[in-house]
Amino acid sequence: MRTIPQTMHAARLTRHGGPEALELAQVPTPAPGHGEVLVRVCAAALNNTDLWTREGSYGLAGDPRAKAGWRGRVDFPRIQGADIAGTVADVGDGADPALLDTRVLVDPALYDSTGPHAHPVGLLGSERDGGYAEYVVAAAERVHPVQGSRLTDEELATLPTAYGTALGMIERGGVQAGETVLVTGASGGVGLALVQLAHARGARVLALTSAGKETAVREAGADETIVRGGDLWADVQGLAPEGLDAVLDVVAGALIEQGLPHLGEGGRWVVAGALGGYPASFDIRRLYLHNKALIGSSMHTPAHFSLLAGIARQGRVAPVVAAVFGLGDVHQAQAELASRSHVGKIVLTPDAR
Amino acid sequence: MRTIPQTMHAARLTRHGGPEALELAQVPTPAPGHGEVLVRVCAAALNNTDLWTREGSYGLAGDPRAKAGWRGRVDFPRIQGADIAGTVADVGDGADPALLDTRVLVDPALYDSTGPHAHPVGLLGSERDGGYAEYVVAAAERVHPVQGSRLTDEELATLPTAYGTALGMIERGGVQAGETVLVTGASGGVGLALVQLAHARGARVLALTSAGKETAVREAGADETIVRGGDLWADVQGLAPEGLDAVLDVVAGALIEQGLPHLGEGGRWVVAGALGGYPASFDIRRLYLHNKALIGSSMHTPAHFSLLAGIARQGRVAPVVAAVFGLGDVHQAQAELASRSHVGKIVLTPDAR
Repeated sequence: MRTIPQTMHAARLTRHGGPEALELAQVPTPAPGHGEVLVRVCAAALNNTDLWTREGSYGLAGDPRAKAGWRGRVDFPRIQGADIAGTVADVGDGADPALLDTRVLVDPALYDSTGPHAHPVGLLGSERDGGYAEYVVAAAERVHPVQGSRLTDEELATLPTAYGTALGMIERGGVQAGETVLVTGASGGVGLALVQLAHARGARVLALTSAGKETAVREAGADETIVRGGDLWADVQGLAPEGLDAVLDVVAGALIEQGLPHLGEGGRWVVAGALGGYPASFDIRRLYLHNKALIGSSMHTPAHFSLLAGIARQGRVAPVVAAVFGLGDVHQAQAELASRSHVGKIVLTPDAR
Repeated sequence: MRTIPQTMHAARLTRHGGPEALELAQVPTPAPGHGEVLVRVCAAALNNTDLWTREGSYGLAGDPRAKAGWRGRVDFPRIQGADIAGTVADVGDGADPALLDTRVLVDPALYDSTGPHAHPVGLLGSERDGGYAEYVVAAAERVHPVQGSRLTDEELATLPTAYGTALGMIERGGVQAGETVLVTGASGGVGLALVQLAHARGARVLALTSAGKETAVREAGADETIVRGGDLWADVQGLAPEGLDAVLDVVAGALIEQGLPHLGEGGRWVVAGALGGYPASFDIRRLYLHNKALIGSSMHTPAHFSLLAGIARQGRVAPVVAAVFGLGDVHQAQAELASRSHVGKIVLTPDAR
């Protein structure tokens, strides 16, 4: 076993703010506590939540414009990064020593209880330190061995948040084979995962995407692409005249009011993000008279992540890596993410070798 | 078998409007078609939907102020009344002759498909003629024998819409034993049914009601009553500091925005009516970041109604009949319903004996 250095490179968020709020630093390497392991980070993928947490754009229940992380106040300094593929470098008391040197995918969620259907109430990189670093500590039960996977470290790192979120949406929305679903924001990290996973489940996938990204979205499994900027709902009406069975949405905003009438009887609108704006306003009669549901979906459950780890081991997904940056180029990586000009995920390689 | 008269007394809605839009008339007794039965109406309960359909207050997707029934345009004249207990007086071709003279509870829903989980897309009294009459035609598969029930005809007639709607809400909201639920409008027909059925399921029931109705609501099974007009959410906070598992709501309006933060992680807000107003406006982050869902619930499925018919046969409910009127006093009955001064259901007895 390789020696673990006393200090490590990390990118720490020192406050809510612009790119300057994220600082590169040499910090003490953390030690695993009881039931925990230390993971050497081979690859860490970026997510929109990294930008939103940095900016503090989640608001608070009583104060929607407050600077806050998704669960409220963030304890600074905080190492960002939720999505981690790596190797177990050390185990704490009470953690299985057989995990040492195992290649793992880390479930970044902190849960409110035990059991397969626990609710996520925290996240590595937000409520605990994450993967923008050479090492990270995680609960032993949250690292999933992925020894034989044909996926690269960078590809594995794209899975936890994007594919976990997508699986959570699909499961909570009860998407079934033969149903017609609309995926909004289909070219983003969660969007491409939704397209792949819904297609693999046998659903007919209509994908809303920006111009120039149709091919990537079709390759992920979309049956139809709809280009943003046109008359979305006229297109949906033409492609699904009897109404959609589900909408898998990271846009929200005005889309909800416009789109609710295009859900069929018993249709489910699953929301996991609000790129289009936070206020939701609609006529409640359009929801309740047709047994429609607006289902909030944040991350995944332990059951969803176990399903995802199985998919990772079997390599039954085709994650798209848009770009790879070294940890020292984290600001450039976040700027690239914020520009939304890429297709797929942006990955950091802390490279503690 | 008693002779079926050529004509019958009925109260027909001739247009959307005030009480004068509902006219008493002598009309031809309908004949059961293929797979249908003729039911002699022993008791027909009133529902809010009767008032809303009469007034045309459901709006249309593209025109929220349009006069319309819950499914859109109503075909006038239309005999109102969804909730019917009666006796099978005649059977059409293809309907089981053994049903003749059977005491039945009528499932008032018209469904979009066969099977236990079909969606209701129509209603006796709205899309087909209903029970404000001496006789009504129904599909043979929608009449449920309730021969041995200890419930009176008037009590049985209170069940289909109120208890069917309540069961639909509880089932769609996945209410489980040990959960804490808030019932809004607890003293209404659906509200009392919700309190009884949620209590019977083992949930802890907080009931919002108007002053003077607390005793009736407690007798129905409420663990706590909260009187309307006070600081509802402060009371809820005190009674359920960790958040509600579900809200079973017929009020909607501003309640949704105010109440969403009081749902716990994974909480379900089930809406089946909008006495408090149609616009729903809230910050979508308060929904999706906590895996909460806003679930529209309209009526019941065939599976829910079979469950209800079993409850009716076993008499495992205690319906509250507020008042009984003859068919000729239908205007007085609707005025009483509109006044909201009663506890329980108002029932008509067409009395074709």
